[in-house]
Amino acid sequence: MRGLGIGLIGTGYMGKCHALAWNNVASVFGDVARPRLVALAEVNAELAAKKAAEFGFETATGNWRDLLANPEIDVISVTTPNAFHPEMAIAALDAGKHVWCEKPMAPAYADAVRMKDAAARSGRTAVMGYNYIQNPMIRHIRRLIDEGAIGTVNHVRVEMDEDFMADPFVPFYWKSEAASGYGALDDFAVHPLSLLFTLFGHVGTVVADLVKPYAERPLKEGGNRAVENHDVASVLMTLEGGISAVLMANRSAWGRKGRIALQIFGSAGTILFDQERMNEFQIYEAGGRAEEQGFRTVLAAPHHPPYDRFIPAPGHGLGFNDLKVIECRELIAAIGGDKAHVIDFEDGLRIEQSVHAMARSFAERRWVAV
Amino acid sequence: MRGLGIGLIGTGYMGKCHALAWNNVASVFGDVARPRLVALAEVNAELAAKKAAEFGFETATGNWRDLLANPEIDVISVTTPNAFHPEMAIAALDAGKHVWCEKPMAPAYADAVRMKDAAARSGRTAVMGYNYIQNPMIRHIRRLIDEGAIGTVNHVRVEMDEDFMADPFVPFYWKSEAASGYGALDDFAVHPLSLLFTLFGHVGTVVADLVKPYAERPLKEGGNRAVENHDVASVLMTLEGGISAVLMANRSAWGRKGRIALQIFGSAGTILFDQERMNEFQIYEAGGRAEEQGFRTVLAAPHHPPYDRFIPAPGHGLGFNDLKVIECRELIAAIGGDKAHVIDFEDGLRIEQSVHAMARSFAERRWVAV
Amino acid sequence: MRGLGIGLIGTGYMGKCHALAWNNVASVFGDVARPRLVALAEVNAELAAKKAAEFGFETATGNWRDLLANPEIDVISVTTPNAFHPEMAIAALDAGKHVWCEKPMAPAYADAVRMKDAAARSGRTAVMGYNYIQNPMIRHIRRLIDEGAIGTVNHVRVEMDEDFMADPFVPFYWKSEAASGYGALDDFAVHPLSLLFTLFGHVGTVVADLVKPYAERPLKEGGNRAVENHDVASVLMTLEGGISAVLMANRSAWGRKGRIALQIFGSAGTILFDQERMNEFQIYEAGGRAEEQGFRTVLAAPHHPPYDRFIPAPGHGLGFNDLKVIECRELIAAIGGDKAHVIDFEDGLRIEQSVHAMARSFAERRWVAV
Amino acid sequence: MRGLGIGLIGTGYMGKCHALAWNNVASVFGDVARPRLVALAEVNAELAAKKAAEFGFETATGNWRDLLANPEIDVISVTTPNAFHPEMAIAALDAGKHVWCEKPMAPAYADAVRMKDAAARSGRTAVMGYNYIQNPMIRHIRRLIDEGAIGTVNHVRVEMDEDFMADPFVPFYWKSEAASGYGALDDFAVHPLSLLFTLFGHVGTVVADLVKPYAERPLKEGGNRAVENHDVASVLMTLEGGISAVLMANRSAWGRKGRIALQIFGSAGTILFDQERMNEFQIYEAGGRAEEQGFRTVLAAPHHPPYDRFIPAPGHGLGFNDLKVIECRELIAAIGGDKAHVIDFEDGLRIEQSVHAMARSFAERRWVAV
Repeated sequence: MRGLGIGLIGTGYMGKCHALAWNNVASVFGDVARPRLVALAEVNAELAAKKAAEFGFETATGNWRDLLANPEIDVISVTTPNAFHPEMAIAALDAGKHVWCEKPMAPAYADAVRMKDAAARSGRTAVMGYNYIQNPMIRHIRRLIDEGAIGTVNHVRVEMDEDFMADPFVPFYWKSEAASGYGALDDFAVHPLSLLFTLFGHVGTVVADLVKPYAERPLKEGGNRAVENHDVASVLMTLEGGISAVLMANRSAWGRKGRIALQIFGSAGTILFDQERMNEFQIYEAGGRAEEQGFRTVLAAPHHPPYDRFIPAPGHGLGFNDLKVIECRELIAAIGGDKAHVIDFEDGLRIEQSVHAMARSFAERRWVAV
Repeated sequence: MRGLGIGLIGTGYMGKCHALAWNNVASVFGDVARPRLVALAEVNAELAAKKAAEFGFETATGNWRDLLANPEIDVISVTTPNAFHPEMAIAALDAGKHVWCEKPMAPAYADAVRMKDAAARSGRTAVMGYNYIQNPMIRHIRRLIDEGAIGTVNHVRVEMDEDFMADPFVPFYWKSEAASGYGALDDFAVHPLSLLFTLFGHVGTVVADLVKPYAERPLKEGGNRAVENHDVASVLMTLEGGISAVLMANRSAWGRKGRIALQIFGSAGTILFDQERMNEFQIYEAGGRAEEQGFRTVLAAPHHPPYDRFIPAPGHGLGFNDLKVIECRELIAAIGGDKAHVIDFEDGLRIEQSVHAMARSFAERRWVAV
Repeated sequence: MRGLGIGLIGTGYMGKCHALAWNNVASVFGDVARPRLVALAEVNAELAAKKAAEFGFETATGNWRDLLANPEIDVISVTTPNAFHPEMAIAALDAGKHVWCEKPMAPAYADAVRMKDAAARSGRTAVMGYNYIQNPMIRHIRRLIDEGAIGTVNHVRVEMDEDFMADPFVPFYWKSEAASGYGALDDFAVHPLSLLFTLFGHVGTVVADLVKPYAERPLKEGGNRAVENHDVASVLMTLEGGISAVLMANRSAWGRKGRIALQIFGSAGTILFDQERMNEFQIYEAGGRAEEQGFRTVLAAPHHPPYDRFIPAPGHGLGFNDLKVIECRELIAAIGGDKAHVIDFEDGLRIEQSVHAMARSFAERRWVAV
Repeated sequence: MRGLGIGLIGTGYMGKCHALAWNNVASVFGDVARPRLVALAEVNAELAAKKAAEFGFETATGNWRDLLANPEIDVISVTTPNAFHPEMAIAALDAGKHVWCEKPMAPAYADAVRMKDAAARSGRTAVMGYNYIQNPMIRHIRRLIDEGAIGTVNHVRVEMDEDFMADPFVPFYWKSEAASGYGALDDFAVHPLSLLFTLFGHVGTVVADLVKPYAERPLKEGGNRAVENHDVASVLMTLEGGISAVLMANRSAWGRKGRIALQIFGSAGTILFDQERMNEFQIYEAGGRAEEQGFRTVLAAPHHPPYDRFIPAPGHGLGFNDLKVIECRELIAAIGGDKAHVIDFEDGLRIEQSVHAMARSFAERRWVAV
């Protein structure tokens, strides 16, 4: 069996993360042909060569378009800044390549639509890099919900908090510009939205409140500049299945580093999860003797596939980068026409639609239907 | 120094809780005259006599109005079902007694207004039984906020969750009747509102979503009956000082027993608290060496007054009933004309106003100003 | 039914704690006659009078022997410094009073033996103030063990840690003198030993290691003085039933405030408890679906008597002082000839024997049988 | 720069783990030449070929001795069952290869000595696979101790608990045979010993207690067989620097999956760590305002190298397999003659000596010097 030929665009954090995934997926899973790392593209040709050597790619180029014409390449990983996603992803699809694109799709909604259309007409696999949905804990939670372990879900709360914008003395930079987006909403609320979609389906109606913790920020050159978007977002919403949800995102939350906290309430129990302790979840199941009822903390274990492919012993822990390896395996499944647990460009577009609806709800101070 | 003469109406849980408070306040604090437990009123005269003996009251009566005329009584504790609060509290105030009334004020807003007016014209002390604000941890959090320990607060989340309505097979009873109120909102969201008020001031504008986890409940006699109020409430709001807040209340939250969880985000740190672990709070203070930054779990200690009046050693723990003893001490301070940490009938009324505004916001699907 | 007549010796922390217990026991439990607080003794007569008024005692005296002759007094609470316990407890027993004595019995083993003998010949109830065994969580753990919830227990670890001796710059004071005892062993390891006894029975053989974290401490007047006892104790032991145990005590454990942590390993599960979070315990029960196995955190609730006597709602929390109220109720049961959950002078003596055996084991660097 | 040539013996869990490490070390660290995966040895030649393809090895062989003569191979990973370690490691060293050998060295002490001697005479790098010491949290704890962040360490407790032997109904198998070793002591107490060594140095004197939770286990063929070693080990010990320590290991601890819990007490603070939550540690530093003192939970972050080589954002989490990648980087440093954080055969031997001393202490019921 010939392994897929891989082209990678970008060598930043996500570039490295994709490279690790392509290097590991065969060793970890043992059920797919080892991919062939054909070519690495990076605008700085010298850096491209250095990184190709590190990452194990056979060739390097300073021109990403070189990958399009290379017949040995089957899949292209797009890990460049968001603004480049539409051009690169569409070109790759048009060239007949499968595409694995980091989230979000594009700053402009129209571009995201074009990406979805390109994927549809190409007949190729086009998958977004929503890695948190690949956590075996999340997968198991989905299984539990499907099995009815907590009955019918009626209410959900999800929080995503980090503190990279928490310091008011950090000089103004592009993340506070309106051109970069709405702020917390599109900068990272798309992650919890990917989880809500995975577990419960798409968003129906929303009412959102956005907050600027700091009206302005200092400029390096002296003086201040008004902040143009919102670091905090709070949203009431209904999900397709009739579940009500509260989404909260705060990129100015001192002390939170990678919190994505889920509370899922059902008619027969409750499930809790927090990505900061990504190797565990809590479940409360109604029933049993009252005297010993309580939340059970379950540690990740081989019982929660595909944890077993990484480690045969329970409680030893996966890492953030391992989620990308799982995502890579799912991508390969999708390419092979198998059932795969991925967010493709069509679902990705709907996630971005819901973000735009939230922003509109805030601007107009009213409930809005996605 | 003569101790206050006490009359108590009610012998249910809150009656007992008040009785314990009156019995303990002098022993614990050592700075007030020991109250004299004059008379206990309870509609069942036999029970009244039995409980008076247990609780240490000198006399008992089956008619609460007997307390009004008793010149030995200075303060009346009202711990009967909510519907009786207006009549009893107003009569007591009109008779020149101070009043300590369990929350909430009254099912009907107009009655709550009448209570506030009675308090105002009486010149007596009229205090609501919002005990959670008395937790030394909450007091210390207020001190930290006042001192600027976490800078300027910009965002707050508060959750109150229990599971006494979580079981869909529990037969319909009065708590699901519209006559009993809105459901989660007034049944217990008033508690987190008392905390928000204590820490940040009153509520400005709100948008609320209310949810019925179960459309109907079984009747004991067979068949089902439609549920008339909402077990889940989610509210976006602004507080007076311009802080944005999210309030979430769920009385159908399986596994939650007495959760009142606060997340307070400021420009220089974050504070966390959960009443289920009422003897600790967490604080993250920006600054210090990056390598060891993190949330600090602080255990209740004599450094957090009035914990020191109960226990001279740190980390040993107060209980829920101790909060009522503290509240009792604050009530005595208020009666004595001293600065006191209480929610009087005027502030209590504003809390209930905000609840009604939330209900209106839900009914009209729009933002509403309190 | 006439309530017991109470005499109290001592007005320090434990004096206050006993006073609160005598004041509350009838209100909380509702099944015993309200005790009559007859007389308070305290060497400072003026303080005695002040505290008697605060605590609700009818009379006060500067001479504790006045209590012995008072026919209205049935029980005497002894809460004075340890050195006074033998004289007072023996005199009280000889005078026909029941005795409730704070732990430990006496600094000298011979005195403890005399106390036990006095209790035996008096025919009166003589109970030690080991309050931690009264925690409803501990009681429930005992029930679980008795029911076989975790199978046959085979191994136990218990840690008791505080930090009141952790600061090396605190000047030398009596707690570091050999005359005050062995240090961590008798100063507070008796508490975890009371738990081990309650749950598993008495200690068989031991090997102990004692440590001085600081060889000397500063003197207030300048210079240093050698520390004469040991702040850290570690003990391997076998319990009567053949269970092996590890006991660890550290009164120089920075950051620990009231930790008494139990780990109980059985053939079918594990139970965990920590007094710093005294309103919860954890249980892992083997069995059930592997995918959701984990430790369940159980919050204290009315299902765990006598929590129900204090609070009718789950998860609201008892406090440290409430344990003394429970202990008081058990004492009353013992006096009434009912089955009671107490540590009497005979069992108390055996706990102190095991402490002496540990000290001997350390001195002789060998295993020792109690 | 030419990358190291790698030979790997074994394709079980640790074989895979080594393979992942060799595949990732260059991509992750970016400062070493990418190793060349030359040959994979596995007694089953067919499996060897399959795994070589998965893991990215150029060639495969059914005879591990083929690796010795291969001039392209610089380093040999030995990941076979313990009994094969001496023969393979010694042969590899004698052939001039560097060796990376999984722990422990050998079942028999004499063989471990031979391994150490072979390493010494070869002049090659010989490193044991003690991966837990590579956790960035452990490294940072060592740095904190070196910096005096918690003053002078005076007492340490370490627990290692799992539950793979907890079920008494699991049939007797080789792990319960005396031939396999002492049980908990050598089966996994060597891991916490590697941490104690890394942080504090070697063990001085010990007294140990070993326990058989189950005297016998069922045989598959019916009947029972006596268990020959001990699933529980508890040890009091002194470390070289005069620190006292308690080591506890239990492989029958229901619910524990990968617990390695450290409690490090110093004159100015305390540090806590638990491998089950491998991406965090707790620190209590004496000093600061008393009202907010507490244990700080610190999440793994780029401030804790080499976390930064894996992930540029804090709080996102490394996994168990990542520790092997770090170990691999340290091995490469050692081979290159750089300062490296590894346990070589000499230190590895001393760890095994301490295990044998513990077993002797138990057999003779006395304190023993290592």
